[in-house]
Amino acid sequence: MIDDTDREIIKHLQTDGRMPYSQLGQLISLSDAATRQRVNRLISRGVIDIVAVTDPATLGLGIQAMLGINITGDTRKTAIELGANVEAVYVVMTTGRYDLLVEVVVDDNESFVDLLSRWRAVDGIASIEVFNYLGLMKQTYDWGVG
Amino acid sequence: MIDDTDREIIKHLQTDGRMPYSQLGQLISLSDAATRQRVNRLISRGVIDIVAVTDPATLGLGIQAMLGINITGDTRKTAIELGANVEAVYVVMTTGRYDLLVEVVVDDNESFVDLLSRWRAVDGIASIEVFNYLGLMKQTYDWGVG
Amino acid sequence: MIDDTDREIIKHLQTDGRMPYSQLGQLISLSDAATRQRVNRLISRGVIDIVAVTDPATLGLGIQAMLGINITGDTRKTAIELGANVEAVYVVMTTGRYDLLVEVVVDDNESFVDLLSRWRAVDGIASIEVFNYLGLMKQTYDWGVG
Amino acid sequence: MIDDTDREIIKHLQTDGRMPYSQLGQLISLSDAATRQRVNRLISRGVIDIVAVTDPATLGLGIQAMLGINITGDTRKTAIELGANVEAVYVVMTTGRYDLLVEVVVDDNESFVDLLSRWRAVDGIASIEVFNYLGLMKQTYDWGVG
Amino acid sequence: MIDDTDREIIKHLQTDGRMPYSQLGQLISLSDAATRQRVNRLISRGVIDIVAVTDPATLGLGIQAMLGINITGDTRKTAIELGANVEAVYVVMTTGRYDLLVEVVVDDNESFVDLLSRWRAVDGIASIEVFNYLGLMKQTYDWGVG
Amino acid sequence: MIDDTDREIIKHLQTDGRMPYSQLGQLISLSDAATRQRVNRLISRGVIDIVAVTDPATLGLGIQAMLGINITGDTRKTAIELGANVEAVYVVMTTGRYDLLVEVVVDDNESFVDLLSRWRAVDGIASIEVFNYLGLMKQTYDWGVG
Amino acid sequence: MIDDTDREIIKHLQTDGRMPYSQLGQLISLSDAATRQRVNRLISRGVIDIVAVTDPATLGLGIQAMLGINITGDTRKTAIELGANVEAVYVVMTTGRYDLLVEVVVDDNESFVDLLSRWRAVDGIASIEVFNYLGLMKQTYDWGVG
Amino acid sequence: MIDDTDREIIKHLQTDGRMPYSQLGQLISLSDAATRQRVNRLISRGVIDIVAVTDPATLGLGIQAMLGINITGDTRKTAIELGANVEAVYVVMTTGRYDLLVEVVVDDNESFVDLLSRWRAVDGIASIEVFNYLGLMKQTYDWGVG
Repeated sequence: MIDDTDREIIKHLQTDGRMPYSQLGQLISLSDAATRQRVNRLISRGVIDIVAVTDPATLGLGIQAMLGINITGDTRKTAIELGANVEAVYVVMTTGRYDLLVEVVVDDNESFVDLLSRWRAVDGIASIEVFNYLGLMKQTYDWGVG
Repeated sequence: MIDDTDREIIKHLQTDGRMPYSQLGQLISLSDAATRQRVNRLISRGVIDIVAVTDPATLGLGIQAMLGINITGDTRKTAIELGANVEAVYVVMTTGRYDLLVEVVVDDNESFVDLLSRWRAVDGIASIEVFNYLGLMKQTYDWGVG
Repeated sequence: MIDDTDREIIKHLQTDGRMPYSQLGQLISLSDAATRQRVNRLISRGVIDIVAVTDPATLGLGIQAMLGINITGDTRKTAIELGANVEAVYVVMTTGRYDLLVEVVVDDNESFVDLLSRWRAVDGIASIEVFNYLGLMKQTYDWGVG
Repeated sequence: MIDDTDREIIKHLQTDGRMPYSQLGQLISLSDAATRQRVNRLISRGVIDIVAVTDPATLGLGIQAMLGINITGDTRKTAIELGANVEAVYVVMTTGRYDLLVEVVVDDNESFVDLLSRWRAVDGIASIEVFNYLGLMKQTYDWGVG
Repeated sequence: MIDDTDREIIKHLQTDGRMPYSQLGQLISLSDAATRQRVNRLISRGVIDIVAVTDPATLGLGIQAMLGINITGDTRKTAIELGANVEAVYVVMTTGRYDLLVEVVVDDNESFVDLLSRWRAVDGIASIEVFNYLGLMKQTYDWGVG
Repeated sequence: MIDDTDREIIKHLQTDGRMPYSQLGQLISLSDAATRQRVNRLISRGVIDIVAVTDPATLGLGIQAMLGINITGDTRKTAIELGANVEAVYVVMTTGRYDLLVEVVVDDNESFVDLLSRWRAVDGIASIEVFNYLGLMKQTYDWGVG
Repeated sequence: MIDDTDREIIKHLQTDGRMPYSQLGQLISLSDAATRQRVNRLISRGVIDIVAVTDPATLGLGIQAMLGINITGDTRKTAIELGANVEAVYVVMTTGRYDLLVEVVVDDNESFVDLLSRWRAVDGIASIEVFNYLGLMKQTYDWGVG
Repeated sequence: MIDDTDREIIKHLQTDGRMPYSQLGQLISLSDAATRQRVNRLISRGVIDIVAVTDPATLGLGIQAMLGINITGDTRKTAIELGANVEAVYVVMTTGRYDLLVEVVVDDNESFVDLLSRWRAVDGIASIEVFNYLGLMKQTYDWGVG
């Protein structure tokens, strides 16, 4: 998997994803080149993604909501089918009252009705329950890496 | 707010957060310096965060779960109180069956029991229902920016 | 109570609330004066209200939602207390899963969080569950009058 | 859309739908003719309806109830199909525990059983949960117009 | 319908169903024959039944339970089909969380499983939720007769 | 407890509670006097009640409903307290979603709101959920007696 | 059935399943041979099983959970079908919110998703709700034997 | 922890808890003495318990049920308090709709009402929902040991 140096790198990038390799290298006592190589490997192996994250509401983007979904068949198959929609920004398989939690971003009420109508007709979907977002209060990416 | 060039920048950084200013500048027809200035302003004004995101499960980190929480008083106050815990990585106020959705990352079952016991005793918490994660199927940050 | 002529009047006004007394009088075979007198009596006795109704969404007004509320004490007392809020446009006592259904119109997510936080603290409120409106599909006032 | 004078007009008509054009005109500083023209345009464009509203219970009309409905397909299609029934006086698409809220007025228990039996057989209806009305406590139409 | 004397009769028989006609006649100031005639007419018209009621548990009879049933089609049709079973002693159509409440008396756990398995397969039954009886605390028949 | 002859007696009285002792005696091969003695003993020992039963709806009596009640303390104490109300005609302790099922008969919506407001304030009542009756489809008393 | 001596035997073996026949015989005042014969008969008749029980978590075995399952057909048939899976360690038919409770032990999240996907497709399964175990707090086998 | 030989031992004892040390020793290629020593160590360290297990229903023991419990404070504290009751035979902390699942064995309906009344009054208990057992369909102890 990943070693302690990788964990150090991840920890720093969780706070500042654009930290220059020179600064990052100094923090982990590696050369710029070695640091860059490690970061690139972490990205290419899919361990991390370095991206701009934002609160859609701040950008004036329509409606965000979490959907609690129950299914009647194969969890992964339905998760993949829903995840193929651009409105789905987060798809996770769960236990408890719902089988899937899917976070969506839609333009407005009209397109939300469209999305729900379309998804309810997806084979294997038993029910969809919506939780509209009233406001994001915390979004962090710097959880411990071991 | 933000102009169309900002939106262009965000769109690119949502896919590759470490894109060099030179490459980004070319894509939006601005000089490196102007590009850097805009990116820094977007960050300093809190419009975007550029960070390494990852799937805790991939890093071998204990347990991830969403909590559906009902409260008896002020939503923001409770959201802030729970958000002050390091285990809470995502806190959003919602409508529907729950008043708050809180994503948590905990080390193991023992610390999960500790967290739940502590949070249930928080003033203003009526009930907590847990959805354990069985697997993350999609996590994207490149939603439309208008 | 009201007689058959009153019922005829109501039926016509449910479709066109501004129908002139002359036209209405002809339809129910009464003089203008007698018609006006009956309409005024129906209004002053509280049998009918003649008002402009509209879909808040059409007017670009923020958020509409129905709240399903459970209470721990006197239904009427709580209904009156909530009804005293300008955001509450419809308050009805019910049987079934909820004790009260309250329709609200609020400006935006911020004020919705404020309203919910305030109402949850109202003495006698056990829980509030929100149903956001995605779109009004029918709103009619011409139900049978007997 | 509508301008500030329209909003003024609507505000007055939400309280007194039969206010004479002369009185209304004075309040908004317009001639009778111009006022009438604006009111008629608001009505013909569907921005407002001016109607007699009443509490069915006051008229001795049987049973009123809200139905919380879950559907398996296209929300609008089902909303329109149910809305075509004369018993449905209010149909709104929602998020949360139910996909549709439909207010109905029926004559008596017998016709309520008939309605429910018929609607449950409607294609695309997954479940119907009934909230009987025990008493209307507030019904207002004078919400802000911006 | 029934007159005040009938109501008097019913009231007395709700407490003591075997009260002799002579005693009952005296209480309502009618002859034995007239009293007998009225009682028989109340029975033959189906207004009352005079029967021995008992608590099955007292007789050492297996298991009593209420079933909350949701249906997908015609309420009366399903109510009649279930009511045709000897185990069903009370069948009522309801609003709220369930469409039918059915009280059953079964011999033992084995026959309860049989009954539930059979009923779940009945066309038009969506779900059955069981409430086992732990003890009857009140059973009265002398409610007001107007 | 009771012997086979008692069971025979009960079976006959469950269908016709006013069957004369002579007729009943013939069916169970006992003298009138012995039959009367046995019936009286069954009544005095509380094994059976012989009463007129009816459908309140048939008598034009207001509203019937089942209440599903959850409690926070002693089941029997609350059952007895609620059972002391004349509106409660059936009180049974249950397992499952509710702790008590209580059937009530009330005059009208007004008195139903009164009853619910009063009962919600009863110490030890956590919640009350109402199932309005739309129509009684079966009511029988002739279940097996062993 | 079983006699008092059998009950004595069971009581002792519920605490110490490997108690030697000599020690057990002394406690119940029987010879070794007679004791052994009784124990063997209790086992062969299926009254008891003498087995090593453990907490899977203690052995480092993946995930334990209880599943609350609702079914649409024959309870026993579905119980047997699910029980044929090695992951199912406890299968019981229930009343209340669920028709079956099934305890499962699976290796990891991946195999849990597989199991749930497979079971949801089982004919007669309406829904599965999962309760993950966070920790076993008591497991005893010495309940009274009469 | 435990080694592969221990796992082998556990596997055999999960099927036959009274297997003689000689037979068990042969299966795992160890001497009787070494085998006995290992078994005793597994027991003394609490890895396994060797006990007689049975289906209470087979022994004619009253009522078995699972309780789904929600709590308002510390999970372990409440779990221990309930586990101290002899009626509780299985206590596990869970995620999902309930915080605790507790299996109970009680003599009869009377003592079940007593137990529930007593437990509802326990500090930290928010609600108890009961699932009565209709029949045990599988109970196994031979799950994999790694």
